[in-house]
Amino acid sequence: MPLFIANRRVEFAQTDMAGVAHFSEYFRYLESAEHEFFRSVGLSVHLQQEDQQISFPRISCSFDFTKPLRFEDEFEVHLGVERLGEKSVTFRAEILSGGEIRARGRCTTVCCDMANGDMASIPIPENFRAALDGIRWES
Amino acid sequence: MPLFIANRRVEFAQTDMAGVAHFSEYFRYLESAEHEFFRSVGLSVHLQQEDQQISFPRISCSFDFTKPLRFEDEFEVHLGVERLGEKSVTFRAEILSGGEIRARGRCTTVCCDMANGDMASIPIPENFRAALDGIRWES
Amino acid sequence: MPLFIANRRVEFAQTDMAGVAHFSEYFRYLESAEHEFFRSVGLSVHLQQEDQQISFPRISCSFDFTKPLRFEDEFEVHLGVERLGEKSVTFRAEILSGGEIRARGRCTTVCCDMANGDMASIPIPENFRAALDGIRWES
Amino acid sequence: MPLFIANRRVEFAQTDMAGVAHFSEYFRYLESAEHEFFRSVGLSVHLQQEDQQISFPRISCSFDFTKPLRFEDEFEVHLGVERLGEKSVTFRAEILSGGEIRARGRCTTVCCDMANGDMASIPIPENFRAALDGIRWES
Repeated sequence: MPLFIANRRVEFAQTDMAGVAHFSEYFRYLESAEHEFFRSVGLSVHLQQEDQQISFPRISCSFDFTKPLRFEDEFEVHLGVERLGEKSVTFRAEILSGGEIRARGRCTTVCCDMANGDMASIPIPENFRAALDGIRWES
Repeated sequence: MPLFIANRRVEFAQTDMAGVAHFSEYFRYLESAEHEFFRSVGLSVHLQQEDQQISFPRISCSFDFTKPLRFEDEFEVHLGVERLGEKSVTFRAEILSGGEIRARGRCTTVCCDMANGDMASIPIPENFRAALDGIRWES
Repeated sequence: MPLFIANRRVEFAQTDMAGVAHFSEYFRYLESAEHEFFRSVGLSVHLQQEDQQISFPRISCSFDFTKPLRFEDEFEVHLGVERLGEKSVTFRAEILSGGEIRARGRCTTVCCDMANGDMASIPIPENFRAALDGIRWES
Repeated sequence: MPLFIANRRVEFAQTDMAGVAHFSEYFRYLESAEHEFFRSVGLSVHLQQEDQQISFPRISCSFDFTKPLRFEDEFEVHLGVERLGEKSVTFRAEILSGGEIRARGRCTTVCCDMANGDMASIPIPENFRAALDGIRWES
């Protein structure tokens, strides 16, 4: 099954005094690719659906950095689902630029209903599950 | 009347590839000083008070930049009230480091009640007004 | 003469607890549109050209905010040149979404040669000047 | 041996539309605590020392999130060294607020000499090593 690919470019405000994209920006690149994936199948990470306010807060996130990205570098975020549980989903991502892997990431999010002002974990709704099944990460 | 002074230091993630604090961070420095001022008098910019959810969205903000700040530079944000209207307040700020002015800013915020999910402008409550009266900017 | 138009979408990390794009992000939207404009004509804000390291640090920037942008809102940054001096350029920008103006901004940058480690203002090179002449703001 | 403790407060611009500190900010909290630790012993992560331009780019970073932080929450970053190699150091961090652990992180950085424009890994200088020996993480 194909991965989802988001295309991005390093912006000036994302660089630091070392001249490269600040490492914290990679976590935003991954999140932004997740959201673009959900939009591509007609969903959103903040969706009112029936009586539920669906949201996906994350419980862990990590990145290994191989080679820095610089200002105006174009890159791809390759996104797939490594594990799809009843209530949680673990994404894997690779960031590539110029044909090289620059970083590898992983994030686990939990499906929650925020309708009553708190975060109650719930089974991932069927429409989200079907979408996530479409981008399985084969390692 | 004295100004309010907030003490800060430039963090690494706030720098850009030019080696200086990114200009957008100054707007956050000013906002953060406003909030520290309100805390110093026992208030908060997001306060439940009687049946109102007080908030101060901003309608304009500007900065003139004189000399850059660099990583780990300590600086002061001098904050005062230039104009206190019935529903709005205009702050002035100067950012100083090493005895020199580095930037001058101005922000206008409007007091709103967010209780019903929208932004309805309301007269600034008396406790906020009294606090703001204490840091008048004399130009 | 036509303005330059950059298309963007509000990302989750750009929102704040008020549920809208944080005001400091607008300054990054404007900067990012400037850079996209320069790329569209084959230039870059950090360009090694002959013996010069061209850069455009900004000396002032302001925004008036009319109506907030929310998560996943698509918007356009309309960018034009209000004043083109010998060494400085003043950009104007309007941010539009859903056919409405959401914010109006202005930024003045100065052309500098960073080659020797400091910021020395220099006349705007001819290739930059020709590009900037192409997007005049008629107010 | 004691850990290093940095005291921080969640700023408004660090929150997102879910009303909590955005997860990417924790990576900045950890980095900022590292830098504060180095300053506390008279060092800096960007230090000109003899003919070397010492820097510590990171090769991996991760966080597990237990309970969110909200606007104006005060918190502590407890920082320690889990592993001190010849050229690399792995930090552990716990973020605590209100007596509760909110998040646990880990970052590995490599000591590099940036003097010649590239990142060449070098043995950690003795003054840095002595400082890092003082905050060992006992798990």
